[in-house]
Order: sequence, then structure tokens, then C-alpha cells
Amino acid sequence: MKTTVYIATSLDGFIARSNGDLDWLPGIGDADTGEDYGYQAFIDSVDVLVMGRGTYEIVCTFEPWPYGDKRVIVLSRTLAHLADNLPDTVELRSGTPAELVEQLQAEGMKHAYIDGGKTIQSFLNAGLLDELIITRIPVLIGTGIPLFGPLEQDVKLQHVETRSYASGMVQSTYRVIE
Amino acid sequence: MKTTVYIATSLDGFIARSNGDLDWLPGIGDADTGEDYGYQAFIDSVDVLVMGRGTYEIVCTFEPWPYGDKRVIVLSRTLAHLADNLPDTVELRSGTPAELVEQLQAEGMKHAYIDGGKTIQSFLNAGLLDELIITRIPVLIGTGIPLFGPLEQDVKLQHVETRSYASGMVQSTYRVIE
Repeated sequence: MKTTVYIATSLDGFIARSNGDLDWLPGIGDADTGEDYGYQAFIDSVDVLVMGRGTYEIVCTFEPWPYGDKRVIVLSRTLAHLADNLPDTVELRSGTPAELVEQLQAEGMKHAYIDGGKTIQSFLNAGLLDELIITRIPVLIGTGIPLFGPLEQDVKLQHVETRSYASGMVQSTYRVIE
Repeated sequence: MKTTVYIATSLDGFIARSNGDLDWLPGIGDADTGEDYGYQAFIDSVDVLVMGRGTYEIVCTFEPWPYGDKRVIVLSRTLAHLADNLPDTVELRSGTPAELVEQLQAEGMKHAYIDGGKTIQSFLNAGLLDELIITRIPVLIGTGIPLFGPLEQDVKLQHVETRSYASGMVQSTYRVIE
């Protein structure tokens, strides 16, 4: 099973303000251009989305639920149960990234979208991330929730491609090589 | 006077390891390709280089002095004097970024290269940076000296251009717009 991160960050590497706020992030599906920065094609290519508690709690505040009937796994050791009003495509699991990858592979999943700072970091540290698609927003916000965090060792990447958009966003794709 | 940052960072936003080490950074002037990532053209375009104490102390360990006869200002409130063996193109000044910019403008300087994390952050916070040229190295190092830091307010940027290199480095140029 391939695992991919698809995420937007400020130029200083934050995925949200400290309180989870995304007000600095222009909306996907820009009304002027219809540009979606490859999001729909990417989401269509994944079988399952994996997120941690932090991202789940932010996404829960979105109305409507943003993932349609896409399978979503909330990976958390501390969350006791999910909100009642979620579609039944959403499930809660605990366990390590390695255990989850093994389970999802056994369930026939081919491509997982790994989302959220802490979850991404735990997959990176476990050597279980294959690809990162990072879209840089042309703004510095100074503080917030970082995409990356401490690592047990350097992670070398292979640059696959970079695209710039008229909006000033720059999207780079990297493969993890070791 | 225009002020520009030209700097390489890891994909997780560090300009050096915590101890100042740059071992993760491929050498400029790659022996295989001769590619210099625009460095020579950039350095030729600046009249003066401004760095803080941290960068100065790392650069002092380089043999030979890497800036030839380019004018260099070490901006520090804590350093008492410079090393004896430096060329006389290097001078120590204290004062704020605003004071230094005023002095350099009065001295006829047209383009200053602002270098070093803390110095870059103080110029950003003072609203005295015009352009950033950031070259991303395809590696995550986990911890280190960050390029960016806390800000008094968001800094909006205009993306000017992005170039990818065969080495996997991705260089983006931004103008500060507010």
C-alpha cells in the first residue's frame, strides 16, 4: 500500500495556527479560477484517508463533512468514540502506524492519504511514508502547528516535480528514499 | 536600498543543525554539473552582506574567507570585536536593522544580502526585507536552526518564480508585499 501526504503549509512550515485556524489558507476550488491544485485527482486516487485526533477535531467543525463517502480512519490512542453524526465511512482505530498499514493492506487498500502533523510525523519516523505533495502558501504566519517535527534520523527525499500556480502557490512532490 | 535573503534550507525549514553543522547541505558549485543555483550572479548583484553573530561565527571557521573582497557587515549587540585575521572589508556594527539600513543607504549601497536566521527574522519583523530567494534541499533533518521564527504579524509574499534543478533542489523567489 502506498502512503501519501497531500498538504498545504505556510512558507514557514505551519499547517494551521496554534488554535487550528486556517484563515491564512485560501479556499480550495478558487471561485475565480476553479483551480483545485490537483486535489480532486489526488483524492480520487486514494482508497482511505488516515488522520489523527488533532485533524479530526478540526474537520469535525466543517459543515458538511468534507470527505463524502471516502473511507476515513481516525487513528488515536486517546479518543474513546467518534461524534454521532458522522457517516459510517468513518471509523476509529488505535495502534501504531505499522499495525494500521498491515491491517489496511490486508483489507486490500492500495493507496492511503496520511493527514495531520502528528500523524504524518509518526508515519515518517516509522519509515512508512512514500510520497509527500506539499503546497506552499505565499505567507509567513510566525507560529502554529508545524508540518514536520523531530526525527530519529535524517529522511532523504527525491524531488519528483514542482508546479507553480498563478495564485502564488508552489506545489512540490517528493518521494521518500530512505 | 533593496534587501534580499538568499539561503538554503532543509525541506523542514532549517538552515543548519543545532550545532551549526551544514553536512546535510550539498556543496555549492557541484563538481559534477558546475551548477551554482544562481549564487554567483546574486552575489555579484549585492554591494554589501549583512550577517549576525551566529552566522559570523560559523563563517569564521571556513578557510579561506568565503566572501572575497565583498563588503561584509557583522551586526551584533554582543560581539566586542572581530577576529584579527579577517580582510578589512569586514566590519562590526551594532544598532537596529532600521539604523543599519539608513546608514548603508547614506553610504550609497543599493543592494544588501541579509544572511542568518536571527538577522533575517529581525529584518522581517522590522518590515525591512524586500525579497527572499529560498533553495529547498530534498532532506528532512528534524531539528536545527530555523530560517523563520515568531512574527509580530503575518507577512504576505508575492511568488515571483520557482526553478527546479536536476539535483532535486527547488529555488523559489518571493517579494514581501506587506
